[in-house]
This record gives sequence, C-alpha cells and structure tokens, in this order.
Amino acid sequence: MGEPDKRLYLEDLAAGQTFRSVSQPITAEEIKRFARQFDPQPFHLEEQEARQTFFQGLVASGWHTAALAMRLLVQSAPFAGGIVGTAIEELRWLKPVRPDDVLRLETGILDIQAGKRSRGIVRIKCTTLNQRGEPVQVLTAALLVSRRSEHSPG
Amino acid sequence: MGEPDKRLYLEDLAAGQTFRSVSQPITAEEIKRFARQFDPQPFHLEEQEARQTFFQGLVASGWHTAALAMRLLVQSAPFAGGIVGTAIEELRWLKPVRPDDVLRLETGILDIQAGKRSRGIVRIKCTTLNQRGEPVQVLTAALLVSRRSEHSPG
Repeated sequence: MGEPDKRLYLEDLAAGQTFRSVSQPITAEEIKRFARQFDPQPFHLEEQEARQTFFQGLVASGWHTAALAMRLLVQSAPFAGGIVGTAIEELRWLKPVRPDDVLRLETGILDIQAGKRSRGIVRIKCTTLNQRGEPVQVLTAALLVSRRSEHSPG
Repeated sequence: MGEPDKRLYLEDLAAGQTFRSVSQPITAEEIKRFARQFDPQPFHLEEQEARQTFFQGLVASGWHTAALAMRLLVQSAPFAGGIVGTAIEELRWLKPVRPDDVLRLETGILDIQAGKRSRGIVRIKCTTLNQRGEPVQVLTAALLVSRRSEHSPG
C-alpha cells in the first residue's frame, strides 16, 4: 500500500498558509564558484578586489541567493507535481549576502486562482532571511499546482 | 597610459540602446548539475523520470536559465561599476529550455532615471532566445550605473 501521499494538492492549499525551510549556510567558496559560472564580477569573485567595489567586500550573486531560495522552497513546500513557476512578479535584493551567512526561507500563500482546470495558479511570497533575521531577498511567484482529483479520481 | 576605458557610464546610455550577447549552449549534464545543487526536481534531474512529468522530458531549471542570462549580460553590457541589480520587476519563462539548446541574450534599455546622485537607475529588458529564435525567458530589471564624473573628475 506504500507511504501515505504527503504532497500538497491544490485542494490542500489556502491563502495565508505558511511554510518554513531549514537553514542553509553559504560559504565564500560557494559564492566564488557560482560567480565563476554565472556572474563573473569582481564583487562576487575575490575578497581583495571586492573591497574596492560598491559592496565593499565579497557578496553572493543575487542569482545565487535566488537559486538557494529555490532549493529551500523545494525542501519546504511539497506541492504535488513539483514547484513549477510560470512567472516571477517581483524579485528584490534587500541586503547583501556575505560569506558564512546562514539563510532560511519563509513562504506564504498570497492567493489561489483555482479555475476549472486540472491545475490552478498559486501565488506565493518567499522571504529569504539571514542569521540575524534580516530579510535579504523577497520574491513573489505564480506556481502551477495540480488538483488531487486528477491523480486519484473518484 | 593603459587601455582606453571601454566601460559604459550613465552618460553613455540612452533609452532604446541595445546589446547582443554571444551564443551559449546548455548541455544535459549542466542542467542536471545545476538541479542537484539548487532545484532537485525530477524534470531537471533525469531524462527517464522527466518524461512522466508536466514537461514530458528534461528541462533546465528556470533559475539556471536566469543565471545564464546574467552571464550573457555581464559579457555583453560592460556597464561601469558592473551589473548591479536592485530589483527584477518581471521574470517570465515562456518556453522550456532543453538539453543542447543554444541561448543568446538581447538586451534593450527601457528608460533611465538619472537624478543628481553618483549613480542612476537604468531599467533594462533582457530576452533570452533559443537557436530557433524563440524567446524562452524575458526579464525586466533595474540596475545601478555609475556616472563618469565620479571617476574622472574635471
């Protein structure tokens, strides 16, 4: 008979529901490795050079912070069919993410457009916080979430 | 006397200016590696399992596509002080990115809020296109760009 299905379907979700992730540290080496691949700029690549920039020290690429938010969202919000985003409506970086910061994600459901189809649109707001509880990134997204009825009819 | 400064300052930019990147292929192995780190979901991790999902095959994480757009932007838009984004106003994935797609970026300046400070806000729209010229991602961002006067006074 297998494990009970712990995934959350459209019918299980409601505006105001919240999800909290585990904590995730970020190291200088990870910041530099991501930057070499995707965002090769002095303030993400090397401490010494980073001091001469706008950021006055090494900071994570905003896209690295965004990608880590995705990892924390996948871990904390077990939506049926996976986390399938159709659009990001807002993505804002509020404070720099520095080496050895520890990040976590708080997610809230803003609203649900259920419609009559096999999937509905769930709008969520995800706030990434550092170890001091300061928001470093805020992100609003529209996700496609499956109805239960599609998967276990009757 | 060194190289002439090829970086673009706020004074060099105007609404309507465009920038084109080089082309960048994306492989199945890169898609899976990014997914293992940041977006561990079946449709990004493994071909066979991906066929049973919404996407009916392996697709790149949207955050991988976004990170690649950043790499192409850094390469194609040499703004003074680097590409420093304060906010993404829109980020939309229009078509799946599949293994062996070849991506390129077209960037246009939407408008500039110069103000009186040492940096102005430049709003850009970046469209990622695949090898068939189909838009796969569109992104609107606000960047901080430095004035020349700050760096070479008089």
